[in-house]
Formats: sequence, structure tokens, C-alpha cells
Amino acid sequence: MHLTPAHKDQALVLFKSVQQRLAAAFEAIDGEAKVVFTSWEKAPGANGQSGGGGTMGVIRGKVVEKAGANVSAVTGDKYPALEGEYKDKPYFAAGVSTITHMFNPHAPIAHMNVRVLQVGDIFWVGGGADLTPFKRYPEDTADFHRALQEACSGQESGTYEKYKAWCDEYFYIPHRQSTRGVGGIFFDYLKGDFAALLAFLDAVSSAYVRVYPQILQRRCHLPYTDVDKDQQLYWRGRYAEFNLVYDRGTKFGLLSGGHTEAILVSMPPVVKW
Amino acid sequence: MHLTPAHKDQALVLFKSVQQRLAAAFEAIDGEAKVVFTSWEKAPGANGQSGGGGTMGVIRGKVVEKAGANVSAVTGDKYPALEGEYKDKPYFAAGVSTITHMFNPHAPIAHMNVRVLQVGDIFWVGGGADLTPFKRYPEDTADFHRALQEACSGQESGTYEKYKAWCDEYFYIPHRQSTRGVGGIFFDYLKGDFAALLAFLDAVSSAYVRVYPQILQRRCHLPYTDVDKDQQLYWRGRYAEFNLVYDRGTKFGLLSGGHTEAILVSMPPVVKW
Repeated sequence: MHLTPAHKDQALVLFKSVQQRLAAAFEAIDGEAKVVFTSWEKAPGANGQSGGGGTMGVIRGKVVEKAGANVSAVTGDKYPALEGEYKDKPYFAAGVSTITHMFNPHAPIAHMNVRVLQVGDIFWVGGGADLTPFKRYPEDTADFHRALQEACSGQESGTYEKYKAWCDEYFYIPHRQSTRGVGGIFFDYLKGDFAALLAFLDAVSSAYVRVYPQILQRRCHLPYTDVDKDQQLYWRGRYAEFNLVYDRGTKFGLLSGGHTEAILVSMPPVVKW
Repeated sequence: MHLTPAHKDQALVLFKSVQQRLAAAFEAIDGEAKVVFTSWEKAPGANGQSGGGGTMGVIRGKVVEKAGANVSAVTGDKYPALEGEYKDKPYFAAGVSTITHMFNPHAPIAHMNVRVLQVGDIFWVGGGADLTPFKRYPEDTADFHRALQEACSGQESGTYEKYKAWCDEYFYIPHRQSTRGVGGIFFDYLKGDFAALLAFLDAVSSAYVRVYPQILQRRCHLPYTDVDKDQQLYWRGRYAEFNLVYDRGTKFGLLSGGHTEAILVSMPPVVKW
């Protein structure tokens, strides 16, 4: 089962549309700063390193301290897998990925990614979205999970519960003995009919684009103290640790010779240890 | 070949003495802040996680922004090795480790570690020291290397050159396609007579304790601009990335269930991405 050129085009149309909607939301929330888009292209490197390209969209404002929404599509000779079955086969990977770090300590970090992969003769989709608040608001957690649950409602019964549990497992930080936030969903290796899979990625990403800005709007202007702000910077250290020590997406990107700047857009703008 | 209790005591005496000399140097350079010592102890955990203890010495001042000198000694049932030969065997590991982050962008980051390990029936020593300046001064690089070269002068011919090359290789950051600093020395798996090995660790650590404070004294009060300071914070991101993505010491600590706070003393106090 191969992705056709038409499949790839359809996926990229979705990913670019998600990026565009996120950029509009970031700019509306910040009220001043604009998203700066930078395109990059990269020839395949030695040792099976990937070639391809993408567009980073990054905003650095006073309300939205740093947020990114990146689209990329890369191919390579050797899939740099931890997974034995797929290791070292030719691959295609495309996706959209976003992380937001707000200035206000009451406004949660959130992350979303949806992607399509072709490795050897097999293609699949994966993705997820999760919320990481420094100050926890049960209302935000409930709204975020409800939106993702709705996005899963077209799938077989139990899908949301399964992907929610997968998320909790994936974002567990062993050396901190805690999860990184209040969860969300995570899924990978979903195989089957391409149109149905892409529709699911559309549902998940559109749910995120709808619910997360709503959460930010009600938190990003709340009053806070200098102590709150300082604690937020230390707390961000956990996020940075997770991204660099455990996250498979970051590792995949760095090990496959991806575009370093694009990969590290996810890192918090200022961190204290 | 086993480390005897007397060997372990001798090693710990050296490590504690290095820690004490470093603490005195940090306090002299800062002129105001004091090193805070915190001891920790940890029972062996599930899944072969290590038990043991140690003492962190951390200073956070206005000149020395953050520096740590930690001594630890841990044992475990299963060596969490990447190395096949030693994987999952009972082990003992003890060492002293130090990293310094100065407020002034002209003053280089430096790191030093010396350690003894017993895994199964084999013991060895390892360690190294490297200099990572944001603003490069050839005089500092030359002095640092000369001190380490002298520390190697009691070893067989070519030792310094070999350990210098090993350091360049170890501290290469693939995703940045550059080394992390201006080098130093790195060595591991040195086996043989315990007294001779410990004397070498003494020579290396004492060279560091002597030369690095000299370098700091001539850089830590130089004038700099806001732009220098801001660039220093972004540049520190590379250091954080190396520590979390590649460094074997950090990985060993986190994966073996070490003391998280002690391990992360090495992280820069403030970082921007």
C-alpha cells in the first residue's frame, strides 16, 4: 500500500490549512506580533539523512511569548527507527506540528501534531494533542478533553479512551515520576483507508484549532505575581527535558538530519534550571 | 579485579577534596554568594534502579551565576549500559562532577568529571574536562589545554593527544555539526593498578581546579553589552541540548534512577530558544 502523489498533496493541503488557521489564532491572541514564515529546503545528506523541505511559522510577541506551527515533508533512504520492523527502509514523512508558550503563567502550553508516514511498503498516520498547564484549571482540562473526544466520535467505540491512555503513557517523565501535563490523546501506526485516516487527522487538528485558542483567551490576561512568573520558567525546564530526552519526534528529527531550527521551535523561549 | 573498601574510601577522599577546593574557588570568584551543600540518600528502586547517596554543592551568585560540584556514590543490580559487555551487571559508580555557568558572557562554561566504576568483575576509571567559551580567547584555550597536557605527562607518550581527540569526538553535536566548545580531554575504561589510576584522576582534577579559576578571574569582570548577554542565553541552548540529548553521564543518571536534582545541576541557569 503506497501513498499516491494525490494522497501526499491532500495531506499537505490539510497540514498547510492547519498552519494557517493556527497562525491567524496566534495573531488574534497576541494582538500585535505577526507570525513570521520561513521556508527551508534540504538536499538528502550522507548516511541516509533525509532531504525535503518545509515552512516554519513562528511568532514571538508580548502575549504569545513564542509559538510555532511548522509543516514539513521529508524523504530519506533509511528510516531512523527505534522500531525494528521499519528500521533503515526508504521513507516519506509529512506533518504539521505546533507548540505554544505563553507569557502569562496562567495560560497553558499545548502541543499538537498530525502526520503521515510511508516506510517501505506500508503507510500510516499518527498524531496527538496534549495540554500542559503550569496553573491547572479543571475547566480548561475538561474543555480540551471534550474537544478531542468529539474528534474521536467518528471512530470505533473506545477510541478516545484508548488514545487518552496512550497519551498519558507517552508523556510520562520517568526521572520526574510524573506526566508532563493533564494529557490529551496520542495515536500512531493507524493503517487503512487513506481518506478515512486523513479525515480523522482533520478532526483532531480542527478540534485543537478551535478549543485551544478559547482556553488561551480566558487565561492570557489574568493577573500574576513575579513569583508566579519565575516559577513558570523553572517549570518550563521539565518541558525542555521531556522534548530533548524522551520525545520521539524531536529525536527522529535530530537523528534523521532534519532542519534543526524547525525542530527546536518547540523549545520554550526562556527556561531556568 | 574488585575495588576494595579501601579503594572506594580513597576515591571518595579525592572526590570530596576536589569538591571542597572547587567550592572555595567559586566563593572567591563570586565574592559574595556561598556554596550550599545538600546531601541526599536513595534506597535502591524497582527495575534495578540504583541506590546510594551524595552531596550537591551549588552556588548561585551575581558573578558565578550557577555552579555545581557534586560527589556521588551509587550501587545497583543492573548497569544501565549502552555497552553490551557490561549491560545489566551489578555495579558501583562514584565520582565528582562540576559545571560552571558564569553571568559574564566573556567567562567560559567549563565541565570536569572524574569517576571510578566497578561493573561485574571489572573496574575502571574515566573522566574528562572541557572548556566551552561563548567569546573565544586563544589564551584561555591554550592555558586550559596546557594544564591538561601537564596532567597527562606522567602517562605513556601520546596520552594527551589521544584523550584530546576523544574529547573532540565525544562533544561533537551532530545536529549542529559542531563541537560544543574548544575541547579538553576525555577518557574512559582505563584499567590497571588502582593507585596509578587514582593518581591520574588526581592530576586531571587538580589541573582543572588550578587553571579554570585563573581563566575566570580574567574574564568575569570584562564589560559586555545587552546584546552579548542575550546572545549568551541563546548560545546556552546548545549546551542544554547536548546535556539532554547526547551526554552519556546525564543519560546514565536519569535512566539509572539517580538523583534528578543533582544530575540537572549541570543545566544552565537561564536559557533562551
